[in-house]
Amino acid sequence: MTKKELVEQIKAKQSFLCVGLDTDITKIPQHLLKEEDPIFAFNKGIIDATKDYCVSYKINTAFYESMGIAGWQSFVKTIAYIPKDIFIIADAKRGDIGNTSSQYAKAFFETMPCHAITVAPYMGRDSVQPFLEYKNNWTIVLGLTSNEGARDFQLTKIDNQYLYEQVLGTVAQWGTEENLMFVIGATQAIELTNVRKILPDHFLLIPGVGAQGGSLEDVYRFGKNKDVGLLVNASRAVIYAGSDENFAAAAALVAKEYQAQMKALMSA
Amino acid sequence: MTKKELVEQIKAKQSFLCVGLDTDITKIPQHLLKEEDPIFAFNKGIIDATKDYCVSYKINTAFYESMGIAGWQSFVKTIAYIPKDIFIIADAKRGDIGNTSSQYAKAFFETMPCHAITVAPYMGRDSVQPFLEYKNNWTIVLGLTSNEGARDFQLTKIDNQYLYEQVLGTVAQWGTEENLMFVIGATQAIELTNVRKILPDHFLLIPGVGAQGGSLEDVYRFGKNKDVGLLVNASRAVIYAGSDENFAAAAALVAKEYQAQMKALMSA
Repeated sequence: MTKKELVEQIKAKQSFLCVGLDTDITKIPQHLLKEEDPIFAFNKGIIDATKDYCVSYKINTAFYESMGIAGWQSFVKTIAYIPKDIFIIADAKRGDIGNTSSQYAKAFFETMPCHAITVAPYMGRDSVQPFLEYKNNWTIVLGLTSNEGARDFQLTKIDNQYLYEQVLGTVAQWGTEENLMFVIGATQAIELTNVRKILPDHFLLIPGVGAQGGSLEDVYRFGKNKDVGLLVNASRAVIYAGSDENFAAAAALVAKEYQAQMKALMSA
Repeated sequence: MTKKELVEQIKAKQSFLCVGLDTDITKIPQHLLKEEDPIFAFNKGIIDATKDYCVSYKINTAFYESMGIAGWQSFVKTIAYIPKDIFIIADAKRGDIGNTSSQYAKAFFETMPCHAITVAPYMGRDSVQPFLEYKNNWTIVLGLTSNEGARDFQLTKIDNQYLYEQVLGTVAQWGTEENLMFVIGATQAIELTNVRKILPDHFLLIPGVGAQGGSLEDVYRFGKNKDVGLLVNASRAVIYAGSDENFAAAAALVAKEYQAQMKALMSA
């Protein structure tokens, strides 16, 4: 999916919502456990209910990998089920030496085809480059994450800048605004002004709204650019909004509410 | 596996060799492609041939993930086939916010049980902690990697130390020498003296010998401690030593040669 197509979709839906499919077998409604593939049954319900309110699904690979082969089967079925015009992110946080990153890129861009993958920057350029070699896919590199641990290294000061700022500035040179995005946690909204100084034109993937406590208003205020330039993810707040037979309708309501807030922000 | 058991095995075998099962379907001998599971057939041959010369197998998850579900089936069969006294490392370089890292820990310590997993440090303490909560497993955190890209961030100077040194010193406080190891590339042998100042007692996992050009002698000279404290990995140099029906015998020869060098170094 090109940047232009993504921006058009955001404008058409008046939404920059990404729904995170962090599907945990211990948290889905009981009645689904009798299904042949409970994880896929749950995801199918969530996708049907939310697809008009979001422009992206972010699939957190850990929740699938923890179930072994059955989990990967659910993953494959889920990406095949997502409507073709919706941006699919494998939230996998992969990254390794070049010949190994090439295998990860193959996994998530060919074998189990997603539009984008999240990648950790610690191993540097040759660990990111193999993902960028796919011309029609996106590499989403961790910048400043939404968790407490972001303070340990990302917010270390190097001369007059934080490590995460060095990461953004350096990694941005390895790709373009057409194939590279960055993860900036919504809990770090105050830093978005700095981020936009370094990356005025890139899309940012913003997790941390909802269960983690980030503010959508602040994210939009400090983070938007001329193309909106944001994908704001909510996972648990949407997918676990309900816990019984009506889980999908409950998820739809929350997703619709996010979309309405986003529409209001985009119209203001 | 405890540290004591690992050290005993190293002394008994006079080897600190780890064989990396980076098994690539495009590189294995042609005759194996007619097998039902060529990847497993190859690994089985390599394991049978090298198990007396090594103390560990490191399975690079990317090569399995790139084949999708079939790849994960090969992975599961491979870990089940490895003799019980050999240390199994899932070289997965995972790491995410706490509730997600818990799922990765479950994946590689329970569902597909390995002794150890490699973890990326960029997201900080709460991304590493869930792995450390498993009392009988090991977390192997990236310190200074063997690739060119190590220069991009790991060798950034912060005040008077490199980022990787800050990572080693900080992460070491989150666990103990009984559940935490670090990755230090063999191509960075010159840095091992610094590493040992920070981590005198930890085991180090050292990739980069063989195809990547690191020197075993230098690694031992600068990196050993009172327990040896090293697992030196060779992947391509061992597993692709031969390319025909005799691939396993060829791998055995190279692994045996490494073991002989290690024995000589340990006896010197």
